[in-house]
Amino acid sequence: MEENGGHYFEGVEKLVEVWFVDPPGDQENVDLRTITKDVWDELLKAVKCEIISFTKNDEVDAYVLSESSMFISKRRWILKTCGTTTPLNCLKPVMKLAAEMGFTEISDFFYSRKNFSRPDLQHLPHRLFCEEVKFLDTIFEGGQTYCLGQINKDCWYLYTLSHPERGRDDDRPLIELPKVEMKGLYEPDQTIEIIMENLDPNIMNIFTKTRCTDGKDATMTSKINEILPDMVIDDFLFEPCGYSMNGINNHGEYMTIHITPEKEFSYVSFESNVSMNNYTELITRVIHTFLPSKFIITIFANKTSEAYATIRELEYNNYVQWQRAEMQCCNFPSYNLLFATYTACRNEKIENGC
Amino acid sequence: MEENGGHYFEGVEKLVEVWFVDPPGDQENVDLRTITKDVWDELLKAVKCEIISFTKNDEVDAYVLSESSMFISKRRWILKTCGTTTPLNCLKPVMKLAAEMGFTEISDFFYSRKNFSRPDLQHLPHRLFCEEVKFLDTIFEGGQTYCLGQINKDCWYLYTLSHPERGRDDDRPLIELPKVEMKGLYEPDQTIEIIMENLDPNIMNIFTKTRCTDGKDATMTSKINEILPDMVIDDFLFEPCGYSMNGINNHGEYMTIHITPEKEFSYVSFESNVSMNNYTELITRVIHTFLPSKFIITIFANKTSEAYATIRELEYNNYVQWQRAEMQCCNFPSYNLLFATYTACRNEKIENGC
Repeated sequence: MEENGGHYFEGVEKLVEVWFVDPPGDQENVDLRTITKDVWDELLKAVKCEIISFTKNDEVDAYVLSESSMFISKRRWILKTCGTTTPLNCLKPVMKLAAEMGFTEISDFFYSRKNFSRPDLQHLPHRLFCEEVKFLDTIFEGGQTYCLGQINKDCWYLYTLSHPERGRDDDRPLIELPKVEMKGLYEPDQTIEIIMENLDPNIMNIFTKTRCTDGKDATMTSKINEILPDMVIDDFLFEPCGYSMNGINNHGEYMTIHITPEKEFSYVSFESNVSMNNYTELITRVIHTFLPSKFIITIFANKTSEAYATIRELEYNNYVQWQRAEMQCCNFPSYNLLFATYTACRNEKIENGC
Repeated sequence: MEENGGHYFEGVEKLVEVWFVDPPGDQENVDLRTITKDVWDELLKAVKCEIISFTKNDEVDAYVLSESSMFISKRRWILKTCGTTTPLNCLKPVMKLAAEMGFTEISDFFYSRKNFSRPDLQHLPHRLFCEEVKFLDTIFEGGQTYCLGQINKDCWYLYTLSHPERGRDDDRPLIELPKVEMKGLYEPDQTIEIIMENLDPNIMNIFTKTRCTDGKDATMTSKINEILPDMVIDDFLFEPCGYSMNGINNHGEYMTIHITPEKEFSYVSFESNVSMNNYTELITRVIHTFLPSKFIITIFANKTSEAYATIRELEYNNYVQWQRAEMQCCNFPSYNLLFATYTACRNEKIENGC
């Protein structure tokens, strides 16, 4: 997971999540998972990353990529890539392919990322958020753009469509479903992401080839396998350092962790769509696994999710060694979003843990 | 309230609010209201606006300005100016003057504004929010910057200090109070602002010299006097159109309304620090007085305010003719902030009201 001689690697991921509307009628075979690995190999060339591992169960296909991960279920596509990859460059081709299969309508679209540490190293259209917005606005109408956290400092950008939108590049006629039917399409959905920076060097050392032999060794040594014990894990330890894992369970839930361990720019992300009515214990397990000096939490929960009403429980929690710096909550037409930032109370202790 | 031949006037105000820390000891005479009108006349030259009317009671001094308003109480200074004024240009001189009086410490600072319709017409340092931030960062350390609403579209910017900060330009030694003492300094405080655009032309016509003779006539005709009936009103009707009013009551509460009535760029702002545990009725009265096609609500409430816990009631309210487009909630160390945007359900009806 190193780049340009190893001097710098941007751990911050760009995260694309697309939900397509099931076509009318009983079309069980209209399924994004029918897109073959060969086709994805070709599509991901535009992103500048490659598939390095693959697992699946009845609900979800999970790919470990050379830069992060991809998850595919019947009508949902998630692409998360770090470094200097260009995930938006494969969005139009994927939408075109999906439309040819019958997925002519999008019900939800999310593009999000933290601010880059080194935006100057990024490629078009990812150099600036406004450049990404301009690009997305050529595909979607009515996209909404937000900046949570501190503008121009540590922040998290979101481009979202909460309503069905027409893809301009799609030649085929799109069927607009009446709104009352749209509501019925929302199955419970929630996503928690924990973005961690400046992590404990002793723990980061686990994710190097000098300390561990392979992904499984790193997973067990770090106890990542204990974070969500029911997940079947596909892990990968990069040469000379860096780690990625996907976990999937039989409820169609996934988790994914990506680690950039270098001390100068250490970064760990945790993401899962696991359904819980309170994320406090999960968050506690994650941050105690990695001991970050600072972290961001984002939680999306739609109105049918059990996390929707309890999303604000975080307001009343503190994580002993970390204190909340800020918290923002957004209500979108179909989703609630919680955003919170935390910093270690005793920075020196955590940083000198080595 | 017209400018450059009346082709365009920026109704959007820049809002500065500064809370100084009372100096240690019993210093009743250390009071911002001892600054004379002559001194303010001189200070406001840097802002490019003038005092046109003045009222006071035991708690607060209220100035109507050629562009909006200024409110001064013992240790709080509020300056709100529209058009192409430059309020930040008088911040350092005011802080220097306050420091000479004994106000050497700031407990809270807020600078906020909606996005301008015509940022190209603004003057340094107000042309871009990042320019304003850069300017404020030369005065304060640790300022926090936020963009609520949609970045680069309809949004509302905030620069805030929630902790006591040292003014870099201040030569006198500043006394840092222990945090436990700081908490005791917070008296209940809340501010509600309603920023309205594209208003009913029939109602806007009230705020012209062709329809009304003076401020009082416009106040009574529009029923602005019924919004908060206990306020003593100082109103002004501009030639040929435009309206400003300040209201103050004996609890030290204020309200202020500023109206740019021209159909092409109609804009009305309402602001008050009136203490309520539910703002729904007040908001209803305000929006029914002006019938905007869209509006933004912001509510600040600190932890000792009765509005603090109930700030989220808005989440469950709709205003019949208007529907909420988005809502965001921010927790700062000492304040909660609610931000919500609304649009008229039946735009045509409201726009064709004339």
